[in-house]
Amino acid sequence: MDAVADRPDPPVREMEAASLSIDPALEPARPRTFIKSIVSGEVGVLVGQKVVVGGWVKTGREQGKGSFAFLELNDGSCLSNLQVIVDAAVYPLSELVPTGTSVLVEGELKKPPEGTKQRVELRVEKVLEIGPVDPAKYPLPKTRLTLEFLRDFMHLRARTNTISAIARIRDELAYATHTFFRQNGFRYIHTPIITTSDCEGAGEMFQVTTLFSDAEKLEKELQQNPPPSESDVEAAKLLVKEKGEVVSLLKSSKASKEEIVASVAELNKAKENASKLEERYNLKPGLPQKDDKIDYARDFFGRQAFLTVSGQLQVETYACALGNVYTFGPTFRAEHSHTSRHLAEFWMVEPEIAFANLEDDMNYAENYVKFLCQWLLDNCREDMEFMVKNYDKTAIERLELVSSMPFERISYTKAVQLLVNVTDRKFENKVEWGIDLASEHERYLTEVIFKKPVIVYNYPKGIKAFYMRLNDDKKTVAAMDVLVPKVGELIGGSQREERLEILIKRIEDSGLPLEPYEWYLDLRRFGTVKHSGFGLGFERMLLFATGIDNIRDVIPFPRYPGRADL
Amino acid sequence: MDAVADRPDPPVREMEAASLSIDPALEPARPRTFIKSIVSGEVGVLVGQKVVVGGWVKTGREQGKGSFAFLELNDGSCLSNLQVIVDAAVYPLSELVPTGTSVLVEGELKKPPEGTKQRVELRVEKVLEIGPVDPAKYPLPKTRLTLEFLRDFMHLRARTNTISAIARIRDELAYATHTFFRQNGFRYIHTPIITTSDCEGAGEMFQVTTLFSDAEKLEKELQQNPPPSESDVEAAKLLVKEKGEVVSLLKSSKASKEEIVASVAELNKAKENASKLEERYNLKPGLPQKDDKIDYARDFFGRQAFLTVSGQLQVETYACALGNVYTFGPTFRAEHSHTSRHLAEFWMVEPEIAFANLEDDMNYAENYVKFLCQWLLDNCREDMEFMVKNYDKTAIERLELVSSMPFERISYTKAVQLLVNVTDRKFENKVEWGIDLASEHERYLTEVIFKKPVIVYNYPKGIKAFYMRLNDDKKTVAAMDVLVPKVGELIGGSQREERLEILIKRIEDSGLPLEPYEWYLDLRRFGTVKHSGFGLGFERMLLFATGIDNIRDVIPFPRYPGRADL
Repeated sequence: MDAVADRPDPPVREMEAASLSIDPALEPARPRTFIKSIVSGEVGVLVGQKVVVGGWVKTGREQGKGSFAFLELNDGSCLSNLQVIVDAAVYPLSELVPTGTSVLVEGELKKPPEGTKQRVELRVEKVLEIGPVDPAKYPLPKTRLTLEFLRDFMHLRARTNTISAIARIRDELAYATHTFFRQNGFRYIHTPIITTSDCEGAGEMFQVTTLFSDAEKLEKELQQNPPPSESDVEAAKLLVKEKGEVVSLLKSSKASKEEIVASVAELNKAKENASKLEERYNLKPGLPQKDDKIDYARDFFGRQAFLTVSGQLQVETYACALGNVYTFGPTFRAEHSHTSRHLAEFWMVEPEIAFANLEDDMNYAENYVKFLCQWLLDNCREDMEFMVKNYDKTAIERLELVSSMPFERISYTKAVQLLVNVTDRKFENKVEWGIDLASEHERYLTEVIFKKPVIVYNYPKGIKAFYMRLNDDKKTVAAMDVLVPKVGELIGGSQREERLEILIKRIEDSGLPLEPYEWYLDLRRFGTVKHSGFGLGFERMLLFATGIDNIRDVIPFPRYPGRADL
Repeated sequence: MDAVADRPDPPVREMEAASLSIDPALEPARPRTFIKSIVSGEVGVLVGQKVVVGGWVKTGREQGKGSFAFLELNDGSCLSNLQVIVDAAVYPLSELVPTGTSVLVEGELKKPPEGTKQRVELRVEKVLEIGPVDPAKYPLPKTRLTLEFLRDFMHLRARTNTISAIARIRDELAYATHTFFRQNGFRYIHTPIITTSDCEGAGEMFQVTTLFSDAEKLEKELQQNPPPSESDVEAAKLLVKEKGEVVSLLKSSKASKEEIVASVAELNKAKENASKLEERYNLKPGLPQKDDKIDYARDFFGRQAFLTVSGQLQVETYACALGNVYTFGPTFRAEHSHTSRHLAEFWMVEPEIAFANLEDDMNYAENYVKFLCQWLLDNCREDMEFMVKNYDKTAIERLELVSSMPFERISYTKAVQLLVNVTDRKFENKVEWGIDLASEHERYLTEVIFKKPVIVYNYPKGIKAFYMRLNDDKKTVAAMDVLVPKVGELIGGSQREERLEILIKRIEDSGLPLEPYEWYLDLRRFGTVKHSGFGLGFERMLLFATGIDNIRDVIPFPRYPGRADL
């Protein structure tokens, strides 16, 4: 099934023949024009140009009694398709029209007849390559498919309008993130994925291990090469004893030096053999045990290791050296949550700022979220309009609102007062000072009371992590959450406790052991600084921006209980 | 030990008091000026300015019989320190001068006396905050420390000139990467870290599991709440039997409906109780087993899951939809390598390009590497000069060479010919057609023969992965490696096999099962396209750029056998 036709193979022969001292005169590859630059270009400039375009057929239909075909071609560079016209004389049309077919075509851009919606269309002169599709077997027919259905086709779903639009929005948000932090003097730090620290001390963490594969290897090895029996070991030990006696005998009988040396060599050989046999005899199949527990000293890192739940503690070590830093990478929770809001693997953006208090933290958080929203408005209109049309009428309005309005800032205490006084709505979770706000409360604050983003700060210490700075009231900590319409909590942050003794007490009060945090305490022992930071759940931001309901659809390869496709 | 003095707490009280409808009039935080903007600014503009600067004391010394102190202050924004002068009247000098002390100071920028090397210095008017250091306890004294020594202080080593310079170079290379690919129409795709696919089919992979923690939880639970005994279970079953008999009896004796319903309810309750007891009775402590093997169906993802060794196969699904894509993230190898070139966790940049052949792939690879080198020359001079001075005299020359010269391109066959003919050097590994080139060969080609980067292409299929495109000679595949001075292989890439039947045969010939690759084969079944890609080891690039010898020093938190600090 060599489906790819017509286009010459890579010019490997020319390369072979090239002389060594001169750069080989490689035939330049035919440059491909992105459909994005065609559909957004100036018609006057485009018409008459010869271009090579590659992509996948969204819809194709034969026209004029089979004399030509229209193809709606998409190459993923943008949402729009390019209208492509192929004459039957150029290529067998029936092979071109099935949805999902790939083509690389060469032709001339033309102005379509008056009254058609296309600004420009491509008249094909040559089909350079084609990757066919059997429509009877293609899992993604032209009909509209649900996002849930597509989750069973992780490897093909990027070819749909929705998933490719989300991918482009995700890419834009990632680049906007790097741009924002760079503009503000932050350095990007790659915090570790495999960790021996538990940031929250709370964690449902995934364990990382080679013990299973080591045990399998050992088991195979023992099958192929069975261990010695007890009597083999005894015999080897006996041999050592005998050889030892020979050495003693030779020595006491003042034998020649050569004789003694030779006998010692034999003794050593016997000893080595006995110890090897004994070692192999003691090999037990299965996982290594010590005192009836798994012996993690035999694991890859010599101890238990986990997937990180947050890069915060580690990135603090860089904030306390480089000032403004951030990490942006995958984080993990082994929670058995089957909700539309949780993933086992998700991406987090975590800036950390030296010499910054909670207020600085809130300012950075607000500016960052605004920047992301404005970026999408400026760089992602077409995909955002698609979301508005198909998923969430208010998606663009929400971006405009958030990018332009100052966020409300209220203390937790005030937030609780407001919620207690709510009469038009019955909450499932009772509100009183000291509770962790539930999603229903958060959304009520931002969607109903304020109708814009709200930053709630100064939470009760009992519901927040040990590293958050204790306020003077001794009851609250300098924590803040940014709540936005549609998703509720988008960002959680805090000023970190920079005072050594208070931090030690907070760790102890949380019931955590001090020893694993000694390195963290060192940051306070040696040149401590006030510092603050926050974390933005990247997929939450995507839900907020796109209006998509299920978090499994805004990450390319979702991981959740029971599922890790590909 | 509340070391932080003088600066007001975050204005939480004002925030509390703020009315709800108006944005609270928060006291703005004192804006901090980065030392980078001072040391690189225009002296004429700077002198006379009042600034707030925060950082860590590199060296401090009291002068003029203790009447004032000079502090060399570094805030990590650049390599340079700012010279800071504090009078004894402003703050107790002995607290300020120890290396590692943090200070936030306010003062005026002045022109230093003629003949000093500083362009501008800061005369302190107020010490706003200080984080002291006990010099007797500080692990990083002023003296020069080896990189090996620093590896035991992962949490503090970013405060050294070398590690902070590497961090800035790393940040620049990451941003340059995103910029290069964006400029070339690539979209950033987050491929998964947890995977059920093995890209190379070769892999020493880390396994990701919750089985150990689940077993621990179960064990604890069984201790707190012991399982029923066999006789408990028997008794419960007996009760079910009795209740069943009651129901039968009532039914046969035509008892009232109420009586029957009540007895059935009691029967159901007994049944439920018995089945619960039986389930708990069958709970076995330890890892779940099935047929004498670990039962991975009970693991978090319902099957064995691993840490990715490459995002390539997954990112191909997006290339076959969006065209030009790349992934940039952590990858993992559970190899027991203790070399200066291997890490268990490292970052890879992997672009994947639709409608691209091997030549396009080489062009992108060459342009990308050149772009990175030029970026460092343009954006990272000071840190690069530090590397030249302290680690590798030729580091900047190397960047200039690579960014300006076309890369040599030779076939593997030619490379082997050249190496076979080498007479001035004896290789440890014998060269003959069919071998995988060793590092010594690669470095000889790039450093001795060509004295510039070399791309070797068309490798024997036997030494390369199944997904690489078979050439017409049937002996080689369309693979390419980019070799550079100092590190040897920097990039490995290939055109991917887009022909379904050849790909199937290559998988089978590699001794791999087809089933796990069905999704990958689907990309060829439905609208297949020629496509190509490559992977750049990000830490390799850092070794190349900085001249640092050990890979453990160019990643913030290195992971290798026996070590996963923090």
